[in-house]
Amino acid sequence: MNALERLIANLARLPGLGKKSASRIAYYLLRADETLVRSLAEDLGTLRQTILPCGVCGTYTDVDPCSICTDPSRDRSSICVVEEPRDVLTLESIREHRGLYHVLGGALSPMEGVGPSNLRIDALVERVRKGSVQEVILATNPTVEGETTALYLVKLLKDAGVKVSRIAFGLPVGGDLEFADKQTLVRSFKGRSAY
Amino acid sequence: MNALERLIANLARLPGLGKKSASRIAYYLLRADETLVRSLAEDLGTLRQTILPCGVCGTYTDVDPCSICTDPSRDRSSICVVEEPRDVLTLESIREHRGLYHVLGGALSPMEGVGPSNLRIDALVERVRKGSVQEVILATNPTVEGETTALYLVKLLKDAGVKVSRIAFGLPVGGDLEFADKQTLVRSFKGRSAY
Repeated sequence: MNALERLIANLARLPGLGKKSASRIAYYLLRADETLVRSLAEDLGTLRQTILPCGVCGTYTDVDPCSICTDPSRDRSSICVVEEPRDVLTLESIREHRGLYHVLGGALSPMEGVGPSNLRIDALVERVRKGSVQEVILATNPTVEGETTALYLVKLLKDAGVKVSRIAFGLPVGGDLEFADKQTLVRSFKGRSAY
Repeated sequence: MNALERLIANLARLPGLGKKSASRIAYYLLRADETLVRSLAEDLGTLRQTILPCGVCGTYTDVDPCSICTDPSRDRSSICVVEEPRDVLTLESIREHRGLYHVLGGALSPMEGVGPSNLRIDALVERVRKGSVQEVILATNPTVEGETTALYLVKLLKDAGVKVSRIAFGLPVGGDLEFADKQTLVRSFKGRSAY
């Protein structure tokens, strides 16, 4: 295998890429701006050495603690709990949460052998106990695992003297009743709010 | 920007990848098998130095002439003409063509200022003239540009004493008359063959 064939084979192993999209990208790179290719090579080369989980919130960062945890303008009374580091990126993009984050590193899944000790739950409890936290916003996914994790955390934090909330689920904006699945409709109904 | 943010931004510039798929890949790489990440970085780093167009057929290769052009088992009397190097990969995957290839490097497009001199057409004519070529198979795309290029080559090779053929266009296998576009149906009808 030469560098091109190997590149295609390796790109095809990435999530969301098949053999066709991998070869499209590889052939594109052969003609693309050389600085793009060099930058990709360099960042891939240093990625695993320079990007590590933040010791406080668990999101990926090049400085520890991360820039969100050390940002003096962030609201330290509110912690948003997510499953994965990429969820922090997603939520940051909507600029709605001005508090801190806590990355669990997954969700509870007895089927896959993921218990509380496999997640960063103890660290969350410690942050809530010793800090000035007033609200914990649970933003785990609306899946069986994410819901189970949220309910587990609700129980765990019941006596911690903090408000625990869950992000809302319902019809996506621009969606259509006709095309919504039943579970989403149920959540949409139950979560209705008064005008 | 740190390595992670830069990697996401650069991945999002690749064809077929948006910001979401780029960040999914980047976060995947932070946890993936380290040899995969290292191999990707290395191959990207050497790609542009080691992979170059074959001096004969124009496809990308790490040895010049490429392994197809020097393969003694390939039929040297047949040349398949394609627009791009990746088309060679696509056609090789169906193992139907046992001859050689000729990559034009694009298709004629007056709108985009691509004329015959911008493509590897002279090199094709030279290969046809001096070689033992008996058939030229035109496998340019079924687009306005690809068709224009094919017709141009037909005229150009008219007096060269070789058979010039065009790959077939019609309904895709497993397709449905109902969902076929009109152009495809027309091609399918015109190209019908007798039992």
